Amino acid sequence: MYEGVVQDLIDELGQLPGVGPKSAQRIAFHLLQADAADVRRLAEVLIEVKARVKFCSVCFNVSEDEQCRICRDPRRDPSVLCVVEEYKDVVAIERTREFRGRYHVLGGAISPIEGIGPEQLHVTELMTRLADGAIEEIILATDPNLEGEATATYLTRMLRPLGLRVTRLASGLPVGGDLEYADEVTLGRAFAGRRSADA
Amino acid sequence: MYEGVVQDLIDELGQLPGVGPKSAQRIAFHLLQADAADVRRLAEVLIEVKARVKFCSVCFNVSEDEQCRICRDPRRDPSVLCVVEEYKDVVAIERTREFRGRYHVLGGAISPIEGIGPEQLHVTELMTRLADGAIEEIILATDPNLEGEATATYLTRMLRPLGLRVTRLASGLPVGGDLEYADEVTLGRAFAGRRSADA
Repeated sequence: MYEGVVQDLIDELGQLPGVGPKSAQRIAFHLLQADAADVRRLAEVLIEVKARVKFCSVCFNVSEDEQCRICRDPRRDPSVLCVVEEYKDVVAIERTREFRGRYHVLGGAISPIEGIGPEQLHVTELMTRLADGAIEEIILATDPNLEGEATATYLTRMLRPLGLRVTRLASGLPVGGDLEYADEVTLGRAFAGRRSADA
Repeated sequence: MYEGVVQDLIDELGQLPGVGPKSAQRIAFHLLQADAADVRRLAEVLIEVKARVKFCSVCFNVSEDEQCRICRDPRRDPSVLCVVEEYKDVVAIERTREFRGRYHVLGGAISPIEGIGPEQLHVTELMTRLADGAIEEIILATDPNLEGEATATYLTRMLRPLGLRVTRLASGLPVGGDLEYADEVTLGRAFAGRRSADA
């Protein structure tokens, strides 16, 4: 129905998460009328993101360098490790300013339905990081939903024999929600009230 | 809070219509994890759209050529002209397959609040198209809102002296809807515009 390349653009935009056919159309028409320089800037930043953004070799956080800013920062406490599912969870936790340790990004959560087991996550690398005994506490900050809970339970079982302190974020996070959508105060309280993983 | 270029991407995405900060973040994280080839294709189509898409020199519809497909199509009735606000209205009307004439895209509607008067729209070009007398009917298909109604009223006044047939789209109940949910104005218009049940 649309001129060729306009339809291509609508199709590409429709692939983005949360962008339905109507939104894709709306965005495409906006871009048709937008300043060419603005559209070019968006295109360039898309290319740049894929060219420049890598993953930290230590914690798998998003990084433009071999190691991310947090792993490189000597003021961050190396004895406390917060295990999260995704990069966006690191950002959400950093926003609370409650946590001064370091992170380990699993790259997802255990989900048998989607065929994601511990082998698809950065679990082996987590165990390797614990080898030198510098880490004393692990905070399991997976999402408070089914997959996140399963992942935390799995990790607790793996970590218990190592004699570390293993904690979970306090309940208070709305169950069934996504960690990234929690407000700063709730997420901060959850940090302050974290409990032993045996409980 | 985010690594530089990731924040740039979120900022750029947040400029798009209907994309709030949370959606921008969500799309950005999706793109971070997406296949580089997919992201490149999106970037390329953005560049291509701005390079290839022009506006038809006759009707101001979106076109990849000097004249759009509809203006070039000899099977379209040259005696009936449908005046719309935007390109997307052309697409919506084409989808109905009810109209076999040609279009004129104004490029918006009269809106004093936004500083849009007839001079900002393709009104002069519309009058020029009428000069040769080939057009016998003009259908004013502006949006049924304040700005659209104002535009249609203005155009009716401009066109009346030319002795053309000037029509408006019928107002009434949307097909497939419930009468009880129709707003008063729509229901009032449906009454005013009632037609013989034999038709």
